[in-house]
Order: sequence, then C-alpha cells, then structure tokens
Amino acid sequence: MEQMHTHISRQFSAELEDIRSRVLQMGGLVEQQIEQAIEALIKGDTALGEKVIMHDTQVNKMEVTIDEECNHIIARRQPAASDLRLVVAVIKTITDLERIGDEAEKIARMAVRLAAEERPKNNYAEIQALGGYVRHMLHDALDAFARLDIEAAVRVAREDIKIDQKYDGAMRQLITYMMEDPRTITRVLNVIWAARALERIGDHSCNICEYIIYLVKGKDVRHTSLEQIEKEILGHGR
Amino acid sequence: MEQMHTHISRQFSAELEDIRSRVLQMGGLVEQQIEQAIEALIKGDTALGEKVIMHDTQVNKMEVTIDEECNHIIARRQPAASDLRLVVAVIKTITDLERIGDEAEKIARMAVRLAAEERPKNNYAEIQALGGYVRHMLHDALDAFARLDIEAAVRVAREDIKIDQKYDGAMRQLITYMMEDPRTITRVLNVIWAARALERIGDHSCNICEYIIYLVKGKDVRHTSLEQIEKEILGHGR
Repeated sequence: MEQMHTHISRQFSAELEDIRSRVLQMGGLVEQQIEQAIEALIKGDTALGEKVIMHDTQVNKMEVTIDEECNHIIARRQPAASDLRLVVAVIKTITDLERIGDEAEKIARMAVRLAAEERPKNNYAEIQALGGYVRHMLHDALDAFARLDIEAAVRVAREDIKIDQKYDGAMRQLITYMMEDPRTITRVLNVIWAARALERIGDHSCNICEYIIYLVKGKDVRHTSLEQIEKEILGHGR
Repeated sequence: MEQMHTHISRQFSAELEDIRSRVLQMGGLVEQQIEQAIEALIKGDTALGEKVIMHDTQVNKMEVTIDEECNHIIARRQPAASDLRLVVAVIKTITDLERIGDEAEKIARMAVRLAAEERPKNNYAEIQALGGYVRHMLHDALDAFARLDIEAAVRVAREDIKIDQKYDGAMRQLITYMMEDPRTITRVLNVIWAARALERIGDHSCNICEYIIYLVKGKDVRHTSLEQIEKEILGHGR
C-alpha cells in the first residue's frame, strides 16, 4: 500500500512537473512570436509577419491543451494547498500568455500593413527600444516562474513601471510627429497601436509575476502596491 | 449517514449558488461603472469620473474574494465534472470582469482629462453609440451566465462582430477629424482611447460567453469559429 501511494504521488508530481514545463514551452513560443513580430515590423518583412500571424493558432492550441490537463488534474488528483495553487496559477498564467500571443499577432498585422508604406527615418526606434524592454521583462517573468523565485518576480513587476514611462515617452514623440506632419497620421497611428500592444505585454508579464507570488506565498497580491508587497512578502522594512 | 450526505451536498450546492450570485453582483457593479464612466465623459462630469475611479478598488476586492472562495471550494469539496467546470468558469469570468472594470476606469480617467477641454460638436456621438452597444452586450452575457443559456451565449458572442464594425467606423471618423484639424489630435486621441476601451469590453464579454458554453457543454470553444460552434453545440446544420 505504501508503495502504491508513493507510486501515485510520484505520478502526480510528474503531472505537475509536466504542466509547469508546458507553460515554459508555451512561454518560449510566445517570446519568439514577439521577437519575430517586431523584426517583421522593423525590416518590413511581410513573409515573417504572416508567419507570426499563422503561428498564433499554435499558441492558442497550447493554451487549450494545458487548460484541459489542469482540469483533469483537479478532477483526478483533487490537489490541495500548494499543489492546488500551482494548478490555479498555471490556468491563469496561460490565459495571459495567450493574450500576449494575441498582442504579438496584432504587431505582426501592423508589420504587414506598414511594409508597403514608406519607412520612417528613425526606423521605428521607439518600437525597437520598447520591444527590447518588454521582451526582457517577459523572459525574466518566465524565468521567475521556472525557478519559483518570488524576489525575481517582485523585481520584474517593478520593471513594469519603467515600461509605462518608456511607453509614455514614445507616445509623446509619436503624437508630435502627427502634429508636425498630419499626412503621417494614419501611419503613425499604426505605430501607436504597436506600442500599445507592447505596453499590454508588459502588463500581462506583470500579472504572471503576481501569480508566482500567490503560488509560492499563498497570498493574493493583485491590487496591492509594490511597496506593500515588498514589505510583506520579502520582509524588507524601510 | 444518508441525511448527513444530503446535508453536505445541500451545503455544497448553496456554496456553488453563492459564487454564481456573487459573479452576477460583481457584473452588476461593473455594468454600473461603464455606464457612469460614459456619462462622466459625455457630461464632462469630473466628480462622477472620480467616483468611478475610486469604485474600481471595490471591483478588485470582489475579484479577490470570489477567487478565494473558489479555491476553498476546490480544496474542501473536491468538485468533479460540471461542478468543477462551474468553479473554473467562475475563476475565469471574474478575471474578465475585473479587466472590464479596468477599462471603465480608463474611460473615467479620459473623462476627467477631457472635462476641462472644449466639448466636441457631436458630443462624443461615437462613444455614446459604441458604449450603448457594448453595455447591452455585457448585460446579455451576464444574463446568459445567470440562466446558463448557451443559445443566448452564442448570440452574444456573435454581437462582438457588430461591435468591431462599429468600432472600425468610429475610428475612421475620428482619424478624419484629426486630419482635417491637426490641432485636435491630442483631444481626439483621448476619444480614440475611450473607443478602444469599449471595444475591449466587447472582447471580454465575448470571453464570458465562451466560458458559459464550456461550463454547460464541457467543451472549450475558444479559438473556434462561431459557425462551427453553432453547428456543433446547437446542432444547427446548414
């Protein structure tokens, strides 16, 4: 009986490990989608843009598959405490990853639409800069998820403030372009949509970090200020 | 023993009923937030806009509370089949409701920002029209959730296509304004953000409808075309 139990729980651990690694796999694909969408925009590469659009169905399929596996685990294993928190955190994380995938797809659509237009002199410098930050942030969020590292998760969540500042700066710059030359309005608006999509990816990465903290600490930190989180979770006083 | 079991399952049913009614309560608050945010914009009512911004914390709190209750139910009751699907559908629905609340808050912020500016001649006719459609859609989605009515859910999901068309029309109109009078760019951009927020509320309402279908039919219909859903779920042939 003892052996049987060990076997079941070992099997169960393997299942939990499996959904975790699938999340990371899905995260890797999503990272690649963002990278290629931005490259398609900057290089005016229509074929690459269309590849990203097509690959979004793969991201979607991964979400559905992992979601189903999570439901099976809850139904069969009836997990409790931290195991249950892991499953719930995974269900939420994949929703955000799927939406990040949607944002990457949107950028790819802008890329295809803009490929035929005249390239801006600065070659989308705002998008390149913002895109670099956002990709870094998502990568670190997935890393924190892989290592269940809450200090890293809090650090990444803090990054989002910087991204919002960069986004505001880029937006001011883009609005100035439109005002200086109203003929560029339609084109610049497309760049604005791409910047917005990147900003939202930052938000979703931030959500993932909150799930990590919830998962490790059993504490729901959404709608809590970063200062408070740092104080309560990490025990950093002032 | 039999009586005990009845008691437990009656208690359990009451708990499931409770999270369902809490979702509807949260939905009601979110509906009100959208309504008041739009009203604040149209009337240039700063005080109302600030009220909406303040009330968003209430929406957030409701999400956290319902989420915790769902986790308790999973841990204590170990629900299976349709009970489990209900709990998972609730967990997902409240995430979308919370994000709808965020979008309402964004519109309220635009309202406060725009209150000091000159009112446009058409008094935000685009936002009024789009806002009407979107509120209607969310209301119907919550109704479908309350009655677990999948035919209604599919109908509401179909509405989202119309909302996207209305949104595209409004966007073209707004871009024309900017081109005709570049001095209005900053102001019109704020109206564009409000329109975008409404369009996203439509998307979230659509997500809720998909959870309803999943809940009732045990089928994940995200990333499935509406035609296919209607054929498979409702048994409507061609």
